[in-house]
Amino acid sequence: MPRIVIVGGGFAGLNVALGLGRCDVRVTLIDRRNFHLFQPLLYQVATGGLSPANIAAPLRSLLRRQRNTEVLLGEVRDVDVANRRLTLVDGTIRYDTLVVATGSSHHYFGRPDWEQYAPGLKTIEDATEIRRRVLRAFELAERHDDPAEIESLLTFVVVGAGPTGVEMAGAISELARHTLRRDFRHINPARARVLLIEGTDRVLPPFRPALSEKADRSLRHLGVEVWTGAKVTDISPDAVRVLRDGAESVVPCRTVMWAAGVAASPLGRVIARGCGIEADRQGRVPVGPDLTVAGHPEIIVIGDLAAVSQAAPSQKASAPMNAPAPPATLPGVAPVAMQQGRYVANMIRRRVAGQSPPPPFVYRDKGSMATIGRASAVADLGWIGFSGYPAWLAWLFIHLIYLIQFQNRILVLHQWAWNYFTRNRSARLITNEPRTEAEKQNRPGSHIAPPPAG
Amino acid sequence: MPRIVIVGGGFAGLNVALGLGRCDVRVTLIDRRNFHLFQPLLYQVATGGLSPANIAAPLRSLLRRQRNTEVLLGEVRDVDVANRRLTLVDGTIRYDTLVVATGSSHHYFGRPDWEQYAPGLKTIEDATEIRRRVLRAFELAERHDDPAEIESLLTFVVVGAGPTGVEMAGAISELARHTLRRDFRHINPARARVLLIEGTDRVLPPFRPALSEKADRSLRHLGVEVWTGAKVTDISPDAVRVLRDGAESVVPCRTVMWAAGVAASPLGRVIARGCGIEADRQGRVPVGPDLTVAGHPEIIVIGDLAAVSQAAPSQKASAPMNAPAPPATLPGVAPVAMQQGRYVANMIRRRVAGQSPPPPFVYRDKGSMATIGRASAVADLGWIGFSGYPAWLAWLFIHLIYLIQFQNRILVLHQWAWNYFTRNRSARLITNEPRTEAEKQNRPGSHIAPPPAG
Repeated sequence: MPRIVIVGGGFAGLNVALGLGRCDVRVTLIDRRNFHLFQPLLYQVATGGLSPANIAAPLRSLLRRQRNTEVLLGEVRDVDVANRRLTLVDGTIRYDTLVVATGSSHHYFGRPDWEQYAPGLKTIEDATEIRRRVLRAFELAERHDDPAEIESLLTFVVVGAGPTGVEMAGAISELARHTLRRDFRHINPARARVLLIEGTDRVLPPFRPALSEKADRSLRHLGVEVWTGAKVTDISPDAVRVLRDGAESVVPCRTVMWAAGVAASPLGRVIARGCGIEADRQGRVPVGPDLTVAGHPEIIVIGDLAAVSQAAPSQKASAPMNAPAPPATLPGVAPVAMQQGRYVANMIRRRVAGQSPPPPFVYRDKGSMATIGRASAVADLGWIGFSGYPAWLAWLFIHLIYLIQFQNRILVLHQWAWNYFTRNRSARLITNEPRTEAEKQNRPGSHIAPPPAG
Repeated sequence: MPRIVIVGGGFAGLNVALGLGRCDVRVTLIDRRNFHLFQPLLYQVATGGLSPANIAAPLRSLLRRQRNTEVLLGEVRDVDVANRRLTLVDGTIRYDTLVVATGSSHHYFGRPDWEQYAPGLKTIEDATEIRRRVLRAFELAERHDDPAEIESLLTFVVVGAGPTGVEMAGAISELARHTLRRDFRHINPARARVLLIEGTDRVLPPFRPALSEKADRSLRHLGVEVWTGAKVTDISPDAVRVLRDGAESVVPCRTVMWAAGVAASPLGRVIARGCGIEADRQGRVPVGPDLTVAGHPEIIVIGDLAAVSQAAPSQKASAPMNAPAPPATLPGVAPVAMQQGRYVANMIRRRVAGQSPPPPFVYRDKGSMATIGRASAVADLGWIGFSGYPAWLAWLFIHLIYLIQFQNRILVLHQWAWNYFTRNRSARLITNEPRTEAEKQNRPGSHIAPPPAG
C-alpha cells in the first residue's frame, strides 16, 4: 500500500489526512504538537476570552476512527528526495508521497532580537505569554507611583494591522475599558493606550478601502489609536521607535505585540534544497498549479509554506478580458490551506484509483472577515462588503462552523455568550511565570517602586 | 481605618477578604498569583478533563465590588512584628491586623531531588506539567520498539493514597483504558499499568475502614494496582524503588506523581521566628483556639499553614465522657480553611465593632469524599458512610456548589457531562514543552528508538 506522509497537522495537513480516511493508502501524520490549533481565535486566548483547550483538539482524537492513519509526534529535520526518506530528530521514515504543510512563523525583518520584546501570535504558548504580559502590565502599574512609568506600563503597541493585529488591538482595548474597569484601586485601566501601527496607508490592507475605513472608525471608537503609514525602526525593553511622516517618535511602552511579517517554516528551505529548487524570499516553496514541486510529483507543498501563483478570480473579473491578470501568490490564510488540503486528498485518491489528475487547483475566495470588538466586525465577500452587527454575527457563525469538534463549538459559544453579556473574560490567568522573583523579569530593565505607603 | 493585610488568596485568605466587604476596615489581599485556585479539582486538569481557567478565578474579579479591598500581586519575604510591617520582594507594607494563609507545598521527606522526577499537584503549572508527562509517555511508547522500554513508559506510579492520590490514579487509569483506547496504532493504552503506593495499611487512611475497602475494590476494578504498607526508598529517572513486606522491588517507570507529604509554606517559619515561637515539624505555625499567635492578637494564621489543636468532634462523641479526647491538629483540607476564613472575618468584624471576641474556633467536619472514577466515589460524613453512584453524585454536587463563580460551575458541569457520556477528555494538550528538541528531555536519560521501519 502506498505510504502517504503528511508533515504538519494544521488546516492544510489535517484536511489531507481527513480526506484519505477511506483511501487504500497508509497515512502518517507527523506534527511536533499533539493537537490541531484553530489559529484564527488565538487572539482570544491571548486576551483571556477563551481557554487554550477551547480552540485546540488532539490530533489523535480527530483521526482515531481512520484505521489507515497513524499520528506521530515528531520533528522533521531533513529530506532525502532520491530515497524518499525523511529524517526526524529521532529516526527516519520512508514515504511514497510526501505532503509538507508546516506553515509559518514570525519574521522580524532582519531584527530577530525584537522577538523577545514583541512576541508574535502563532502558538498556544505565544498566546498565554502575551496574556501574561498584558495582565502583568496592569498589575505592575497598580503598584507604581511614578506617573511616567505607569503610563509606559499602560501603553500597548500592536505592530501590523492585518486581521490579527486589528483583532488584538480591539480586544486589548475592550479588556482595559470594560473587563478590568472596576478591578483596580490605584490606576484607571480605561486610561490604557492601545496603539496600532501599520506600514501601509490603511488598516486591513487586503480589504476594500471602504471597509478599512469602517474598521478604522470602529477601532478609534473603541479607544485604539491607529497610526498608518508608520514604520517601526526599533524596539527596546521600554520603548518603540516609529517613523511616521518623515519624523521619528519614541513611544515609551512595556508591552509590544508583533502581528506584522511572517516567514515560512524552516522546513521550506530544506525541501526546496532537497528538490534542487529555490525557496522564495519568505522561505516558501514554489509549487505548480497541482501543488507539487516541479519534477517531483510525489512531493506536495501546501498551506502557508507553499508559494502558489494564481490570478485572483476577482481581479480576473475586473481586468479587461484580453489582458492576462497579473499572477499573485495566494495569501497565508486558513481557507486557502483547507481548500488545498481537500484538493490534495482528492488528487491522491485519484492517483491511487488510477484516474486522470484533477484540474489545477483554484482558490475560491469566499471573502475575509475581522472582528474589531463587541458586536463590531467587517466582512468583505468580494461581491459585497458589510460591517457592524451583521458582519459580527457572520463572523461568529463562520468561526463556530469551522471550529473543529462539536464540543469546542458548544463551549466557545457558551463562553462568547457569557463574555458578551457580562463583558467578563474569565480566562485571564497569569501562568508560567519565570520561577525566580517574578517582579524582576517581566522585562529586562523593569524596576519597581514600593507599593503605596501603608 | 484599621488596615487588614491578608497574605494568600486560597480558600482561607479569600474567605477572610469576602467576609470583610462591609466592615469599616481597609483590606489588602496579597498573593503571588492573580487568581484563586480550586485545588480539589486540579487532578482533573492534570488528566485533561478540565481546563485551568475552569477551576481558577481572577482574585480582582472576585473582589471587585468591595470598594474597601485592594488586591496586590506580590510576594512576602519577611515580617517586622514590632513595627507591624511586611517586607515584600519589592517594597514594604504596614498592617494593623495580619492574616497569613499561604498554605502548603510538597514535602519529599528529606529527598528534594525527587521533585524533578515526581512532581506534586498544587499549582496550575504542576497540573499542566503532569498532563504533559502523562500524555507524552503514551506518545513516546507509540514510537518505541523495545518492549521493556514501552512497558516502562506505560507504567505510572502515584505515591500516596490520600484523596488526591486516589483520584489521580483512578483518572489516569480511565484515561488509558477509555479515553485513549482507540488513539494509538502500535501500543494498546489499556495495557498501561497504574500503581498506587501507600505507606499505611489502606487507601484513604482518614476514611472509615469499610470505605477504604470499597475504594480499594473500585480502584482495582478500574485496573489500578494498589500497594499498601509500601514505602518508596528511591526515585530515579527510570525507576521507583519500593520496600514492601521487607523486600525491595524496583519498578521501571518514567512517570511518577507525588501525592504524599506536604510541608507548610516557608512563610510559616518566618512568621514563627518573628513572633518568637517555634514552627512545628512540618513548618506550620501553632495558633491558639482563636487562631491568633500567642502574645500577638494582631497576627492570625489559618489554613494549611496553621497548626490548630482541636479534639475531633467525632472522636469526642465516641470517647468515654470523662476521658479527655487526645488533641489532633486539623487536617489541611479546604473545608477547614474556609471555616477558619469565615471565623476570622467575623472575629475582625467584632473587634472593629468593639464587641466581645467570638467563642474559640471549632471545625465542623461535614465529612470527606473522594472520586475513584466514572460514577464511583466514597463519602464519609462521620455519621454515615456511602459509596458508588450516590457518593459520586454527592461529590459532583458539593464540588459544583463550592466552585467559585457561577460561570465556572456551568462550564465544569457541561464539561463533566460531556466527559461522562463520551468518555472523552478534550483538554489533553501537551503544552510548554522545553524549547529544544523535545524528545531529548522528557526525562534525563530518555533515549528513543527509530519509529517503526517505514
